[in-house]
Amino acid sequence: LLALVACALLAGPPAGDAGGDAERLRELAGRLFEAVEREGQAWERLAHLTDRIGPRLSGSPGAEAAVRWTAERLAADGLAVRTEPILVPTWVRGLESAELLAPVAQRLAVTALGGSDPTPEAGIAAEVVEVASFEELAALPEGRVAGRIVLFNRAIADAGFQGYSAVAPLRTRGAVEAAKRGAVAALVRSLGTLSARLPHTGAMSYGAALPRIPAAAIAAEDAELIHRLLAAGDVVRLRLVLGCRTLPDAPSANVVADLPGRERPEEIVLIGAHLDSWDLGTGAIDDGAGVAMVMEALRLLKASGLAPRRTIRGVLFMNEENGLRGGRGYAEAHAAELPRHVAAVEADSGAGALQGIAVTVGEGGLARLRALAPLLRPAGAEPVTSPGGGADIGPLREQGVPVIGMRQDAARYFDWHHTAADTLDKVDRAELARNSAAMAVLAWALAEMEPALPRPGPAPPGERQR
Amino acid sequence: LLALVACALLAGPPAGDAGGDAERLRELAGRLFEAVEREGQAWERLAHLTDRIGPRLSGSPGAEAAVRWTAERLAADGLAVRTEPILVPTWVRGLESAELLAPVAQRLAVTALGGSDPTPEAGIAAEVVEVASFEELAALPEGRVAGRIVLFNRAIADAGFQGYSAVAPLRTRGAVEAAKRGAVAALVRSLGTLSARLPHTGAMSYGAALPRIPAAAIAAEDAELIHRLLAAGDVVRLRLVLGCRTLPDAPSANVVADLPGRERPEEIVLIGAHLDSWDLGTGAIDDGAGVAMVMEALRLLKASGLAPRRTIRGVLFMNEENGLRGGRGYAEAHAAELPRHVAAVEADSGAGALQGIAVTVGEGGLARLRALAPLLRPAGAEPVTSPGGGADIGPLREQGVPVIGMRQDAARYFDWHHTAADTLDKVDRAELARNSAAMAVLAWALAEMEPALPRPGPAPPGERQR
Repeated sequence: LLALVACALLAGPPAGDAGGDAERLRELAGRLFEAVEREGQAWERLAHLTDRIGPRLSGSPGAEAAVRWTAERLAADGLAVRTEPILVPTWVRGLESAELLAPVAQRLAVTALGGSDPTPEAGIAAEVVEVASFEELAALPEGRVAGRIVLFNRAIADAGFQGYSAVAPLRTRGAVEAAKRGAVAALVRSLGTLSARLPHTGAMSYGAALPRIPAAAIAAEDAELIHRLLAAGDVVRLRLVLGCRTLPDAPSANVVADLPGRERPEEIVLIGAHLDSWDLGTGAIDDGAGVAMVMEALRLLKASGLAPRRTIRGVLFMNEENGLRGGRGYAEAHAAELPRHVAAVEADSGAGALQGIAVTVGEGGLARLRALAPLLRPAGAEPVTSPGGGADIGPLREQGVPVIGMRQDAARYFDWHHTAADTLDKVDRAELARNSAAMAVLAWALAEMEPALPRPGPAPPGERQR
Repeated sequence: LLALVACALLAGPPAGDAGGDAERLRELAGRLFEAVEREGQAWERLAHLTDRIGPRLSGSPGAEAAVRWTAERLAADGLAVRTEPILVPTWVRGLESAELLAPVAQRLAVTALGGSDPTPEAGIAAEVVEVASFEELAALPEGRVAGRIVLFNRAIADAGFQGYSAVAPLRTRGAVEAAKRGAVAALVRSLGTLSARLPHTGAMSYGAALPRIPAAAIAAEDAELIHRLLAAGDVVRLRLVLGCRTLPDAPSANVVADLPGRERPEEIVLIGAHLDSWDLGTGAIDDGAGVAMVMEALRLLKASGLAPRRTIRGVLFMNEENGLRGGRGYAEAHAAELPRHVAAVEADSGAGALQGIAVTVGEGGLARLRALAPLLRPAGAEPVTSPGGGADIGPLREQGVPVIGMRQDAARYFDWHHTAADTLDKVDRAELARNSAAMAVLAWALAEMEPALPRPGPAPPGERQR
């Protein structure tokens, strides 16, 4: 019934040649925003994914349930769906705890970083050395780090992705840098912007030929406590117990759903998000919201009864969080097709109001996207920025595909990111609906656009993907 | 050295008779506010209490360490200190967990309420019945509650004490009301104003001749999850495991520190706060801040070298959180003295900026306190409200002692109240200093005031204590 309603809404009277492409697009955009307001289903999809399936860490039963359910749901919406197999790392959290032993006994709020090796069952008890950066670590005298636990303690300076990205290497590479100096474990102050004694997990990795020392995040409050004790001249000792472990890689899949093109079905506009989440919360903002946007955009367009010029392909990537196997696997499996991928869009910055898009395109592409931007109804002052993209579509960008990241308002994103508090209540229903309509409009516009966006050249070193 | 500096600052030139009492008081107030800014120690006291001693639940080693340290510290400041023995309930938290079993497996963030009996080791697994009030519970059909777990799910409507107080009975009496209807356990949506997957603990009690069913709080997010599942028509089942238990009552103490009066030492102005805290956090806002204010007010006044007309007595009450044995014990031990208690002030509303005071006094007292209020530099629009008081001084009010509650800004108090996130970083150093000065000024003014405040009549039923 809803599909029929939407169909009537969206198909409407034929626009006629007089209106032209721009006018037809404006009219369609208006109808898509109307449709999500009247009969949007993004919220219900997200609620199912978070409430009924729950955490979706790669290799977990939740992740597999999410693959099955989204594929079924998209097929029921009338898309051409397949699951494309990949192998994913499988890391499982165990019991975990940390406590100060000296100068005072206090419990610490701790969580293992994804990929960490466990501690011995009795834990690791050692003195803590605090640094705010890799430079500070490198500057410590010989022997100051060996046998100790390094705490990387640096607060995020600004809310949003830039502030996060500036500090993220302390989490991802902390264990490597600490192990180089002989540390026995690495702790990182949680990468978050809310002090609610919440540890924030996230990916880390080990270096070849270096000891694989256990790595965990502690709550901001606990990092500050340790800082105060050290600043007072105390020797701080703590015990860290992590029961996490890495199991053999497991079979999993990306979910791929096509709305075939009417004129050039072999040319593809990809819209994507990642289906996996961390295990502490239910992954509502990271990245259930993006998944719901992709599913809803496809549903709306399919329900409209209109066929795009090029194929619009939704991809729900697996394993963005701790391996990027889905993004890499897609790029490998579709290598021959990539020259015909005219654009790839990713939604992975939460569920806040759309501020705009961040894009990496060839010369002249930026101006054309700026002209298009108002149709997405962005709330931000600078709706189109560059560079941009997304983690899962990074491998496509490397192959010359124009990439676009949806930029949701991330002012509160890092309050809850990678914590137990990443749950459905953090998402505003109306904003999610509008974000979904914007993604549908953008996909449609890219699928109709003549000529296609100019392709970007080789990526400069350090190009930001989001 | 600091004491000497303060002494010089505060004693200053003699005010002379010309200035009169009001002028002398104004001058002293100015000097006290100056002194805390220049050489305040409230923050350091609070830091020791929270960082170095930590959680202070009645009967715990932390509580006893707090008694010893505050008594020593106050004695070192030159006060006449004694500890007055009381017996306190001793409740210890054990392992605790909760998980949905149907319609989906999900972990819940849970914490036992203080005083709860444990579940069997394997937990209690049962269907959930959700209500928003005792009235809703009473209206449920016969048999709908028996054998089930009752979830009291009502969000706090407004930040601050009024919003909290409206919902608090669901936590304190929920197990009793649920047990009356045959429930096997009681859950309450956390009484908090921040959704950060934080369970908020707090006191509960059992009714005589009713089964003592286990009682716990779940995070707001989890209450909303269960609500959504039930609203969709699902049968929701969960397992609750609580390892908490009640040990025999333990010896503990109130800490009492006197600054003797120069003219009528037998008349007493009491300033108090509670030394115990819940066990999840370090009790910085509840009520370490109040303890620091009392200690700092006494230190400032002692360091001034001035002696008040009446005795100013600081009392650090034990066991406010789960028994009120300190408040009751003080009133009993000092029963003969209570007619000579001219006022009792309590600080137990966090560490926000002082908005004013809430008072319960006899006729004419309100106007006199309103005239005095500007000296406390309150930030609120209505600095003196009535009724008011505090939990620990409630038993004094029942005996006719005028009672006054310090009203700190509580807009964020219930974000962290009774959670693991009640830690030092939630306290602003400058605000804590000013609050301490205000308490010193108020104590001094009450100690000098002629005649003393009129005493209130018998408490009307349901009179609010805070």
